[in-house]
Order: sequence, then structure tokens, then C-alpha cells
Amino acid sequence: MKGKFIVFEGIDGSGKTTQINQLSKWLISSDLIPENNKLVITREPGGTKLGKSIRSLLLDTSIEKSPDSITELLLYAADRSQHINEIIRPTLDQGDWVISDRFCGSTLAYQGYGRKLDINLIKDLEAIATQGIAPDITFLLDIPIEESIRRRRNRKDDRIEKEGREFLSNVSLGFQALSEDSNWKKISAIDSKEKIISEIKSEIKKLIKNK
Amino acid sequence: MKGKFIVFEGIDGSGKTTQINQLSKWLISSDLIPENNKLVITREPGGTKLGKSIRSLLLDTSIEKSPDSITELLLYAADRSQHINEIIRPTLDQGDWVISDRFCGSTLAYQGYGRKLDINLIKDLEAIATQGIAPDITFLLDIPIEESIRRRRNRKDDRIEKEGREFLSNVSLGFQALSEDSNWKKISAIDSKEKIISEIKSEIKKLIKNK
Repeated sequence: MKGKFIVFEGIDGSGKTTQINQLSKWLISSDLIPENNKLVITREPGGTKLGKSIRSLLLDTSIEKSPDSITELLLYAADRSQHINEIIRPTLDQGDWVISDRFCGSTLAYQGYGRKLDINLIKDLEAIATQGIAPDITFLLDIPIEESIRRRRNRKDDRIEKEGREFLSNVSLGFQALSEDSNWKKISAIDSKEKIISEIKSEIKKLIKNK
Repeated sequence: MKGKFIVFEGIDGSGKTTQINQLSKWLISSDLIPENNKLVITREPGGTKLGKSIRSLLLDTSIEKSPDSITELLLYAADRSQHINEIIRPTLDQGDWVISDRFCGSTLAYQGYGRKLDINLIKDLEAIATQGIAPDITFLLDIPIEESIRRRRNRKDDRIEKEGREFLSNVSLGFQALSEDSNWKKISAIDSKEKIISEIKSEIKKLIKNK
């Protein structure tokens, strides 16, 4: 039996890390994951050893020559391909569960809606990189961009975060559009942490039931 | 007026570096390159600052997790895309000339014929990475694989060179097939250095004449 693949998406500051931690604590103590299986928490970019090096090329603000937008897209695809082949597919094949902090939705939102790269080109590369692996459910943690900016104000921005307000606004609109998909669930992430995790848990229970 | 784009291909040990040096010395002293233009020597992978980091991910033998074959292909495409956008296109647009040690032919030979990845997939990625830029002429420096192995015996092999004899033989067959293209010129690279460079010069003169 194949494991479950759960993805969290959202702009920076949307609380993905907090909710992933909450969800994983609950899942580990629940009986939803079969007794002999485990839960793997991972992220993109940088879910593998090789991916960590790719991540630093993508997010480093000090590098003398930043990747142009097509090169950036190809590097995200390389990171994802390695992530699929080294971590995600083998984990799911064993019946284990995977929670990933970002996946294909981020590429569509940031490179497609943010950088205005051709959506079909992005989807072609996605097909090459994922080789048919898709999340069972993707949670969009939705916050207004003002809230994202406020929550990040004491942090040092990486190269993507430095892109500014209009870019972030387009990315956010992209996530809204993507969350219309039936495999996505948009959750208001300005509610209390308790309310958010309770919604997430209820969606996971539904997912298991409908299986 | 657009500059000329010359590529050298061949298995390791075929003498690309030597012939590129010979050709560039001759070109600089010739009147083939317009007076106000220059000659840029570059290579793949690693023709840009970012590309140097990608090159080390591709060729490093010590990295704990080497890229799988699709990830490898995507990393070569990322290196090429940056190379095109940062170096090759702007150089040619100024009317300057470019000589590159390896280009798309190497990807077709090593990843296509060597690793047996789908040729159409490779060509799709090539189109994304090159955005229509193609060499005016590609020289295949052709040597038997025994000669390649002999010439490299005192060198430390990188990750690709470690692949072994059957892989190298498939790559070599790939280069033979690619060199049937009318924009390629196969040159026997076991002849004397003088004979080889003389053939290369004569092809460059023809290229200029037929323009």
C-alpha cells in the first residue's frame, strides 16, 4: 500500500513550519499511519543533500551572478527531481507518509504567477521532475501579504523574499488560483493556531475516509 | 552583425583544449574577426560563475548523493541556460565570436547515447535552455576510446569519466551519429596537431566564405 503525500504551500510567514510540526505530532500519536510505517518531514528546495547545494544557489543573495528566470526554473526542477527519486517516491512506496514544506504549487505560484514564465513550460518541467508523483492533499495557508511582510520584518530576506511587494502580490494571487483545485484546501492562516490545526486534522481524516 | 559560434566536442582526451588554444591564437592574429570585435573562449559545464557551482555538483565524485540521471540532465540544462543568457547570446549579439568547449552535442552523447535517456526529452530541454541559439559549426575531435583511456591514465577521473568503458563506447557512438549533421565536422584527432589545426582552419575559412 502506498503512503500519503501531504504538502503545505503559502507565502513566507504563513506559518507552514508551525502547522507542519503540529500536524506531525498529532499524526505520530494517531492511528492513521499504519503501525509499521513512519512519517517523513521534508521540504523544497533542499530536501536532499544535493538539493541543499541547489537551494543555496537559488536563495543566496550574495552570489555574483544570480540565475536568470529560466535557469532558476531548471534548478528548481533539478532539486525536485532528486527529491522525488531519493526521498518522496521510495518513502511512499514503503507505505510511509511524507509531509513536504512546498512542492510544485510553489513553482507555479512564484515562477509562473510571480515571474510570469509560461505556465505550459512550467508544467512540462514539472512532469519531467515529478514523474507522475502528486500530493494527496495540498494545504494553502492563506495570509494577506501585509501580514507576511509584518511577520518577516525581523528576518533577513533571501533572494526570492527580496523581490518586493508586487511580486509577492502576484505570487499570492497565484496560490489563490491554484487552491481552486479539488486536491487543494485553502485555510485561513490568520486564525488561531488551534483553529488552523483543527481544520487541517479534519481534512486529513476526510482524506483517509474517502480513500 | 552577429558573431560566430564555434563548438568543440569529443570524449575526454580528444585534445579539445589544445585545438581551442591553437584556433584562438590563429583567429586573433587573422583578419576573420572584425577589428572592433573580440573572441571569447568558454566551456560547459561551468562557463559562468553560477555554472561553476553547478559543474562541481555534476562532476564531484565525493558528494554523498550523486544526481540521478534526470536530475543530472536538468542541472546541465540549468548550466546551459545561464551560459546562453549571461555569456553566449550577449557576446554574439555584439558581433564577437565564441568558442565553447562542449555544448548541446555533449548532452545528447553522454545523457542520450550514454545514459539512454529519451532523446526527445533531451531535445525539449535543449530548446528551453538554448532559446534558439545554435553553433555555426561544431567540430568533433574523434579518437578511439582506447586512446582516450590511454591519454587519461595519469589523471584523476571525475564522476562522468568514472562511468567505464561501455558507457564511453556508447558516448563515442553517439558523437559519431551526431557528426552526420551538416553543421558538424568530424576530424580525426589522432593525426598530428599540425594536420588537425590545418583542417580546422580550412573549415573556418569555408564557414566565412559561405556566409
